[in-house]
Amino acid sequence: MSEYNKVTPEIIEQIKAVVDPKRVYVGEDINEDFSHDEMSIYGKKMPELVVDALTTEEVSAVMKIAYENTIPVTPRGAGTGLVGACVPIAGGIVINTTKMNKILGYDLDNFVVHVEAGVLLNDLAEDCVRQGLMYPPDPGEKFACLGGNVSTNAGGMRACKYGATRDYVRAMTVVLPDGEIVKLGSTVSKTSSGYSLLNLIVGSEGTLGIITELTLKIIPAPKEVISLVVPFENLADCISTVPKFKFNHLDPQALEFMEKAIVQKSERYIGKSVYPQVLDGIEVGAYLLVTFDGKSQDELDAIIEQASEIVLEAGAIDVLVADTPAKIKDAWAARSSFLEAIKAETNWKDGLEMLDECDVVVPLNMIAPYVEYVYGVGEKMGLQIESFGHAGDGNLHIYIIGDDQISVADFQKKADEFFDDIYAEATRVGGLVSGEHAIGSGKLEYLAKSVGPRQMEIMEGIKRVFDPKMILNPGKVCYRL
Amino acid sequence: MSEYNKVTPEIIEQIKAVVDPKRVYVGEDINEDFSHDEMSIYGKKMPELVVDALTTEEVSAVMKIAYENTIPVTPRGAGTGLVGACVPIAGGIVINTTKMNKILGYDLDNFVVHVEAGVLLNDLAEDCVRQGLMYPPDPGEKFACLGGNVSTNAGGMRACKYGATRDYVRAMTVVLPDGEIVKLGSTVSKTSSGYSLLNLIVGSEGTLGIITELTLKIIPAPKEVISLVVPFENLADCISTVPKFKFNHLDPQALEFMEKAIVQKSERYIGKSVYPQVLDGIEVGAYLLVTFDGKSQDELDAIIEQASEIVLEAGAIDVLVADTPAKIKDAWAARSSFLEAIKAETNWKDGLEMLDECDVVVPLNMIAPYVEYVYGVGEKMGLQIESFGHAGDGNLHIYIIGDDQISVADFQKKADEFFDDIYAEATRVGGLVSGEHAIGSGKLEYLAKSVGPRQMEIMEGIKRVFDPKMILNPGKVCYRL
Repeated sequence: MSEYNKVTPEIIEQIKAVVDPKRVYVGEDINEDFSHDEMSIYGKKMPELVVDALTTEEVSAVMKIAYENTIPVTPRGAGTGLVGACVPIAGGIVINTTKMNKILGYDLDNFVVHVEAGVLLNDLAEDCVRQGLMYPPDPGEKFACLGGNVSTNAGGMRACKYGATRDYVRAMTVVLPDGEIVKLGSTVSKTSSGYSLLNLIVGSEGTLGIITELTLKIIPAPKEVISLVVPFENLADCISTVPKFKFNHLDPQALEFMEKAIVQKSERYIGKSVYPQVLDGIEVGAYLLVTFDGKSQDELDAIIEQASEIVLEAGAIDVLVADTPAKIKDAWAARSSFLEAIKAETNWKDGLEMLDECDVVVPLNMIAPYVEYVYGVGEKMGLQIESFGHAGDGNLHIYIIGDDQISVADFQKKADEFFDDIYAEATRVGGLVSGEHAIGSGKLEYLAKSVGPRQMEIMEGIKRVFDPKMILNPGKVCYRL
Repeated sequence: MSEYNKVTPEIIEQIKAVVDPKRVYVGEDINEDFSHDEMSIYGKKMPELVVDALTTEEVSAVMKIAYENTIPVTPRGAGTGLVGACVPIAGGIVINTTKMNKILGYDLDNFVVHVEAGVLLNDLAEDCVRQGLMYPPDPGEKFACLGGNVSTNAGGMRACKYGATRDYVRAMTVVLPDGEIVKLGSTVSKTSSGYSLLNLIVGSEGTLGIITELTLKIIPAPKEVISLVVPFENLADCISTVPKFKFNHLDPQALEFMEKAIVQKSERYIGKSVYPQVLDGIEVGAYLLVTFDGKSQDELDAIIEQASEIVLEAGAIDVLVADTPAKIKDAWAARSSFLEAIKAETNWKDGLEMLDECDVVVPLNMIAPYVEYVYGVGEKMGLQIESFGHAGDGNLHIYIIGDDQISVADFQKKADEFFDDIYAEATRVGGLVSGEHAIGSGKLEYLAKSVGPRQMEIMEGIKRVFDPKMILNPGKVCYRL
């Protein structure tokens, strides 16, 4: 393990010499938000110093000082992660990139946009829409920074048709742990020019370098969009319908499954009810929420007709069509608020939220048996489980919630036991530990069990190549403190 | 630099104990083919021993012996590369994977196919078509092994719409330099589970591990396909039309530009002429060859109408539609034979073909000025140049051919000077050294100039993490002998 140094008054002065002192925070001036992400159960830790960086050069200057003095540095975007990746668990410096929030420009000859890493996903998405364009990655959390999205290879609703964030990263500017600035990739759509360092940085959670600028692929916005809400009597029928879409040449933009309980909780949270609970006298147990896009209304009409036949044959109770922007928004409102709805009904204890989650990804044909297995384990252990998932790409979000009787320590112990079991099952059915939330500190040991010691050694070896002093975001992904 | 050992009689015996001796070749029994790839100007070198491997376990057993004895090993597929990547320039062992050629099975619930690494692209492509499926990557060379395609992140004609090989690799079995077998990725469509070692192996040209099995994404075959041949008076008009397709929401499967001279050479080679040379009294200077796919004839009709308007407005002389399988085959026959046609008219000297090439990739809006620059340099240097390219993704193939007056040494010197100049220009306009042919030994110094010393150091460091003794395919990509 590396021996790290503390941020001394001399180092504070050095940093204030390279960054406007108004954007350098120490001690009491540091906002408590910088001690945690959105999943506080993995613990909280205050940094010794926070810098609001404005430029690549400032990030580089701070990294040079940190490297020379062997001080740990944690890069941070909007702090919306769920695995503790932006928590400065070794103390030291947090570099906050949220002020690097400029959309630098579109290049429509090459269909890319240049952005600073702190631009919010929502800001880019809306800006694209205004220009008839689409940035396809669409994670549930719209107020994450694009640098964070790239660092976790964020997936989201539209990954089903359009792929994850990795597929949209053309080039990036990265500050290495010793402060050197490198540019990876370029404004081209394919390459075979040495090891893909760009693809190595994607999903590396700020452990190999700090992303400061990005060149992202964009596409022309689809001309027509429509959503279907498809109620089923039970979850098993609902999930087993999923592979039939692609098999029938249907290519939905999004394909989500939702249990009735979580839909009701979410509708309570947003104060609006649009999902039918009983249809033709049949109690609804689960829903598919499907979105298609296309070039014309005629094309979509044909798709809806075919999709309706497929789902009704597979046991759907009905097919409800949302064909106006308002109706589509309503259909997605409940889905978009799942995490907030769960959080709204979750207890806090000792300043920590009694909530933990995993986001395994499994082969499509394993979703149904896997979900059944998970609920079986949960029932045996007496756990309250909520789940939903990107059915179209096998990515499941499984939450457990602690009631007000259980202590933090007991909840964490129970969570460990539960996750140990269901991660092992995910590996057995050919899945992987994380679909899109990544590893951080919270899932490191589960990753180690899933991929085995050799791959963990290789990852740690790669980290050491980029960061010989192991100062950048230590304790995350593959490097244990 | 590593000190390598020779293959001694004892080592031959050890290898014959783990692989059927009938599949172990030494000395005179080694086919001369194993000394070079398809671009012999980078030199030839015979290996000391060749193994025809049949299983992952055999590859592992041979690697263990090689690692223990510090003997260089070069993995080889069909040997169709163009940068010397499979040439055993340090001697030692060649592991030939072409006998590992079984398609292991389709998984249509998850739309993947499991294959051994030695399966030929053509065999998988045809097998998919028979089942109503498509494996989208479609490099010009159909008789390459899939392991080689993955090792170079091969692109090809359809990368324009469907992306390069990287986008189709879900999982792989890899034998590490010390013989340990690891499985990377899984049958899932997205993940964020630690550094993507899978994406690191893609494009690493057999320098980090030997790929023995692959799980590849497949898609339902498009229902309808059509090609357009679009003649222009000159190359500049032809190329500047390229970005207009995507800008108008048209998404061609393939989009190639071709100069008249190379089309004529290729038509001479295949003995069939379908490309018009004069139209309405106008001499044709260049062509676009465009393929669209879609769900119905109606959809394609609408696309052709729109595409025709766009190209005619951009200065095309005419639009010729190839709407039957036979006509499409004819239109593509000339394009598919470019390399063979060039080779057929190329001199040999001292057992080497007097031919060199580069396959830079540049931003789409830089294709036209870049091609103009290249021809300017060629003219100044008195070089015979042939070029063609995947216009849809900015990937250009530029060939220079030595006449019968020039010596091998002078040709190589002239090639170096020419490529030095045009690679530097590619970097200046925001391009990269290779679009799809990769680096091998032939382009290593150009890569170094393009990305700079720090990225080369990081790549070499990564190589050392996988391969501390530097025995696997030394002298390639980033590690100089």
